[in-house]
Amino acid sequence: MRQFIVLGHDAPATAEFPLDDLSGAGRLDILCRCVGAAVFLSHGIREHVRMHLVVSDEYTIRFDSDTLRRLYPDERTIAARIRDALDQRADAIGHLPAEVSPGMELYRLGFEATLDDVASDGPVVQLHAEGTPLPAVSPPSDPIFVLSDHTDFTDREAELLAEHAEQRLRVGPETLHADQTITVAHNWLDTAGYTEY
Amino acid sequence: MRQFIVLGHDAPATAEFPLDDLSGAGRLDILCRCVGAAVFLSHGIREHVRMHLVVSDEYTIRFDSDTLRRLYPDERTIAARIRDALDQRADAIGHLPAEVSPGMELYRLGFEATLDDVASDGPVVQLHAEGTPLPAVSPPSDPIFVLSDHTDFTDREAELLAEHAEQRLRVGPETLHADQTITVAHNWLDTAGYTEY
Repeated sequence: MRQFIVLGHDAPATAEFPLDDLSGAGRLDILCRCVGAAVFLSHGIREHVRMHLVVSDEYTIRFDSDTLRRLYPDERTIAARIRDALDQRADAIGHLPAEVSPGMELYRLGFEATLDDVASDGPVVQLHAEGTPLPAVSPPSDPIFVLSDHTDFTDREAELLAEHAEQRLRVGPETLHADQTITVAHNWLDTAGYTEY
Repeated sequence: MRQFIVLGHDAPATAEFPLDDLSGAGRLDILCRCVGAAVFLSHGIREHVRMHLVVSDEYTIRFDSDTLRRLYPDERTIAARIRDALDQRADAIGHLPAEVSPGMELYRLGFEATLDDVASDGPVVQLHAEGTPLPAVSPPSDPIFVLSDHTDFTDREAELLAEHAEQRLRVGPETLHADQTITVAHNWLDTAGYTEY
């Protein structure tokens, strides 16, 4: 299982946002591309991927690739499904999620609670501009990658990551968008650290 | 200079498509993500990248990262700019492009003419599921990558590529979306073949 936690700092915590201006809705365009990069292959969905999209540190939308249905790779469709999820936020109580649709759940949990929940599943990996180069380490089993949106981790998030993260990795010399970083991380794992093609 | 030629087989050749259903418009969503993956970094635009989006083998929209303005990474904005470009198609005559906006031009050229035009700029590289693994070769200077959208190369396109392509490379064991493939190719070049981070 590969897991990704993506922090959407400015993403709307209600369903009242327009699908015609995702960039203006807290850069939801980036977050939608992150979901797509995490779960989609050409002509299919990846197996054993879980994506946790943390919205304004208040809700976490979980996408489970093995049971996901009715999701398509374009930003607008993903945003519409995120809106559906947020529309059901009244049904999410603590660790009891609102069931949005097959493979999608909404939790009333912020970053700290989400990280606590998944941290026992495998090593937490922070993708960071100052980390160790990917090829310098062996790809871990069941990694949990944590990424931020267009803004940097807050001090409190950085503290939590310092407590939990086993590794801090960098994907290259350029600062990529979060979705591009997910694509590179997947490729690194797909190829067993650039050795199997 | 890094160049990408992306073949949009089913993309609309007129400006009459809705921005609300890019997936239904010949999978324009994929093509928009290809443009984004080619030219954008987080908080910036890459230097020395040229993207040639071939639309229905009839028009080619050229994005030049060094002079590009008024383009943002979300699919809808990129699609709107593609629509602006197609709206000016009457002004494109042969090798004389319609000037759409800074860094964007529309040519009345299909794939063969576009490939002929750029092939002298550097080695043509076909990204293909049956190619040589990326790490098995040294990253070339001034590469021209050719990719297809959600459908495979046609027989005629494959013939043209067989004539022109110096290398056929594969990015991994999984079949990625074209935009994901562009991201992996950039990362390979950024890191000088996974050696510099």
